[in-house]
Amino acid sequence: MKSNLSKNRHYFDWAAAAPPRGTTDEFDETLLFGNPSSLYTEGRAARSTLEDSRRRCAAALGVNTDEIYFTSGATESNAIVLFSTLCRHTDGIPQAVLTSRAEHPSIIQNCVSLTRAGVPAYYIDVDRNGGTGQDSLEKALRGHPDITMLALMHVNNETGAVSNLRELVKTARQNKKTLHIHSDMSQALGKLPLSLHDFDIDSASFSAHKIGGPRGIGILYLRGPLRTLYKGGGQEHGIRPGTENTAGAFRFARVLETLTPSIRKNYTDAAKKMSYLINSLSAIDRCTILPECRTAETPDISEAKFSPYILLAAFEKIPGEVMVRALDDEGFAVSTGSACSGKAKNHETLKSMGISDDLASTSIRISIGWNTNTDDINALIETIHRILKQI
Amino acid sequence: MKSNLSKNRHYFDWAAAAPPRGTTDEFDETLLFGNPSSLYTEGRAARSTLEDSRRRCAAALGVNTDEIYFTSGATESNAIVLFSTLCRHTDGIPQAVLTSRAEHPSIIQNCVSLTRAGVPAYYIDVDRNGGTGQDSLEKALRGHPDITMLALMHVNNETGAVSNLRELVKTARQNKKTLHIHSDMSQALGKLPLSLHDFDIDSASFSAHKIGGPRGIGILYLRGPLRTLYKGGGQEHGIRPGTENTAGAFRFARVLETLTPSIRKNYTDAAKKMSYLINSLSAIDRCTILPECRTAETPDISEAKFSPYILLAAFEKIPGEVMVRALDDEGFAVSTGSACSGKAKNHETLKSMGISDDLASTSIRISIGWNTNTDDINALIETIHRILKQI
Repeated sequence: MKSNLSKNRHYFDWAAAAPPRGTTDEFDETLLFGNPSSLYTEGRAARSTLEDSRRRCAAALGVNTDEIYFTSGATESNAIVLFSTLCRHTDGIPQAVLTSRAEHPSIIQNCVSLTRAGVPAYYIDVDRNGGTGQDSLEKALRGHPDITMLALMHVNNETGAVSNLRELVKTARQNKKTLHIHSDMSQALGKLPLSLHDFDIDSASFSAHKIGGPRGIGILYLRGPLRTLYKGGGQEHGIRPGTENTAGAFRFARVLETLTPSIRKNYTDAAKKMSYLINSLSAIDRCTILPECRTAETPDISEAKFSPYILLAAFEKIPGEVMVRALDDEGFAVSTGSACSGKAKNHETLKSMGISDDLASTSIRISIGWNTNTDDINALIETIHRILKQI
Repeated sequence: MKSNLSKNRHYFDWAAAAPPRGTTDEFDETLLFGNPSSLYTEGRAARSTLEDSRRRCAAALGVNTDEIYFTSGATESNAIVLFSTLCRHTDGIPQAVLTSRAEHPSIIQNCVSLTRAGVPAYYIDVDRNGGTGQDSLEKALRGHPDITMLALMHVNNETGAVSNLRELVKTARQNKKTLHIHSDMSQALGKLPLSLHDFDIDSASFSAHKIGGPRGIGILYLRGPLRTLYKGGGQEHGIRPGTENTAGAFRFARVLETLTPSIRKNYTDAAKKMSYLINSLSAIDRCTILPECRTAETPDISEAKFSPYILLAAFEKIPGEVMVRALDDEGFAVSTGSACSGKAKNHETLKSMGISDDLASTSIRISIGWNTNTDDINALIETIHRILKQI
């Protein structure tokens, strides 16, 4: 299998996992293996590296160092925040969660768990463009005065739809000041400017591997204290137990620090490539860009309605899985939506957008990254043309 | 600080974190970065490596491949198992947990959380030797017929006491057949033979970093299905959500596979070193080995009452922290008990053993590993003698 993973491959699934950014590694495991909770030199050295990594991540996200907690990834960060409602519920303080139908499974599936455990969850349908509307949000908040937590992602992992998070937060706060507002920002990290304080949110989740960092390390941004369910040795100020992943934190900080200054430049580059990709695909009769409102126009980064890194496209009469396999055979990696929804694809997000099951089932996600170039895109388009002739 | 981390250091805290085993690394991140849940070549290559790592870990633990689930570490593995009781509780099936007072905080603290959430937890006092007695276990099970889960560690992380897990499990099953029996085996992994099926347990937890593997990867052994609280993208058959840590799994498998064939030989070597250490310390007037029953005798591995890798010793009138710092200044890393109980040391385990607070507060943990040698031990003893003259 390894022989296939050669330079002849064209990788178009950066939203699932980004290739590692940089191969050299200044982290010396033989010096920094100490347990950061230990009092002696090796422990203090590891602690110092861990805290320095925290400072660097905080700086990149425009927040205070003590607002950054290292976790094993965004999935865990999401769970820690969502299940804080269960802690309060069992303390006799009524809780309810509001979220959108376009959220990642690590939000939606935990909401199902929470409901089963006595914390009701309500779901907002997204609009045709894949975004959460101000009206829908307001209506949901008014209709369910028991809501104590709101979870809305920033960039959708399937459609690339960018939510107007700042405005949504304003609307939510106008309706209920005390809401805990959480955002899964996994697909925004390193791609959109994230001065987190500007969003007026209470918490946010991030994974290193989406931006070329290692697997198994994530961040939970927390503006204030949070009750947590899973306990242990008190690491990360009790927010996330388990021996700290010093190497992971260090490598996450390094890649985040590298990407942050060039977010705007990278956005412009990606927007150009995405524009070219959309134009090329739009010229194909049997191809529908999803949502259909999406165009090749590239607004300024502050006005972005879609991430220029993620595109959803459907090909008439070709099931997504068939297209993924056909492209794979030709050297291209694309996906059928989110890797995280695994085999049981039900296209909840697309359904919520009013996209028919037929259209949804023929969709594939094409996501690009820093080393995607025009040649890759041309090769992809050419191959899609060839496949369409065959199927 | 790095300048202190030189060859002049003597590391005696292997139970907190083992130095990385081996520096070369055959894992090629540039080839295996794919998301194992993805359908295309890169995803399948990552999946293949992940599943191969699972097979290798299963073989090392003498279990079936489909009984091994990768987690972020033993702390998370413990939480997954313990909180399965909360799932059943919220489904209306009464649950209660029984554990010992000598357990790791990731068991004890989660039991506190569970009790708060409506799942009662009961605690068995350990005996003078730090072990759980058959009688205490039987009494607790008879006294609380509501118990549905039993959690007992195999090797204590502070005293090194080895529980007679097989016999305890037999006793428990005789009292209640349907019990879910869980064991935190973090300090036993790679150090005692673990043919898990022989123990007749339902689940067990392991961390890679205790045996020289990377941080952020662990194993949950599960003999049968388990309800889980935290949900997400369905990875690890729904047991542990989050993009799979392929590199971590690969490296865990590698170090486990390397250690497993030499467990008995390493035990004999460690037992000799530990015997020498105990004899040397016993010759010091102000030193008390804890528990006091512990001798320099080295029984066969199948009869081990204490891990030859962990020793607890108290020094009259010298608070543990003072001794740790004094030794650190001289180039030695030892700890005040478990790194995971952090700053708020309350010596619950030792209290449960009937050890006075005064004696407990003067204890330090000395733990050894594969490259600890007689020179290290001689240097440690010499330095302790010098410190004792000064304080």
